[in-house]
Amino acid sequence: MIGKTISELEVGQKSQFSKTVSESDIYLFAGISGDMNPAHLNEAYAAKTHFKTRIAHGMLAAGFISTILGCQLPGPGTIYLSQDLKFLAPVRMGDTITAQAEVTGIDHAKHQVTLSTICWNQDDKKVIKGTAVVSPPKALKQSE
Amino acid sequence: MIGKTISELEVGQKSQFSKTVSESDIYLFAGISGDMNPAHLNEAYAAKTHFKTRIAHGMLAAGFISTILGCQLPGPGTIYLSQDLKFLAPVRMGDTITAQAEVTGIDHAKHQVTLSTICWNQDDKKVIKGTAVVSPPKALKQSE
Repeated sequence: MIGKTISELEVGQKSQFSKTVSESDIYLFAGISGDMNPAHLNEAYAAKTHFKTRIAHGMLAAGFISTILGCQLPGPGTIYLSQDLKFLAPVRMGDTITAQAEVTGIDHAKHQVTLSTICWNQDDKKVIKGTAVVSPPKALKQSE
Repeated sequence: MIGKTISELEVGQKSQFSKTVSESDIYLFAGISGDMNPAHLNEAYAAKTHFKTRIAHGMLAAGFISTILGCQLPGPGTIYLSQDLKFLAPVRMGDTITAQAEVTGIDHAKHQVTLSTICWNQDDKKVIKGTAVVSPPKALKQSE
């Protein structure tokens, strides 16, 4: 149960994860985060806002990026060092979000890998873009 | 139900939110995000890792920052534009995390506000630091 080590990674490798965002995702995220902003939970309020309806928390879709990093590329054993995020467009209930991470840099001396990270919806509209830096798993330090 | 407009904000204003991270928070976050990394869900695996036990998803504690921005400072009506995050230390089950956002810059021309954002645990150890940029609510565009 270990992801790709730094020697198994190369620039240009990419991985995707897709999920349809449900009302329950948003309501559970509100409870977990404590973010009870009416933009996420109050349709009567949200209908009067710029976005016209309830939207997901930005960090909810950002979580799909960590799904790739922690489970797929590099995968288990990865340590998440940093992430920057630009929130480009809202995520609404029922939207299907695809997150993608692509290796853009490998620093063997620091044992760090940089990935460009992007999320888009079912209409190919970008909703989040950014950059992640991770420390990929070290084979010898894992017991499995 | 509207937060602080740009004219009500000033550099140095700050707000905090604290929450104890539970096992259920982490398990629900795994289902919402799809991030089933064993570091978050498998104690037998996690016991053999660098962190010795299951840890929370980094984006879970990052969500506490958006709680401040969306609910407190500036508050409802805020549009989240960007966030950068450095993950400095793990968050374990039972840790009580305090997030703080402090206004560090106000750009009236762009209608944007920059905040330094930081999260620390019950031992005053910093777990996340970063910077947020938001567009605060505009009073005239809200109906409430």
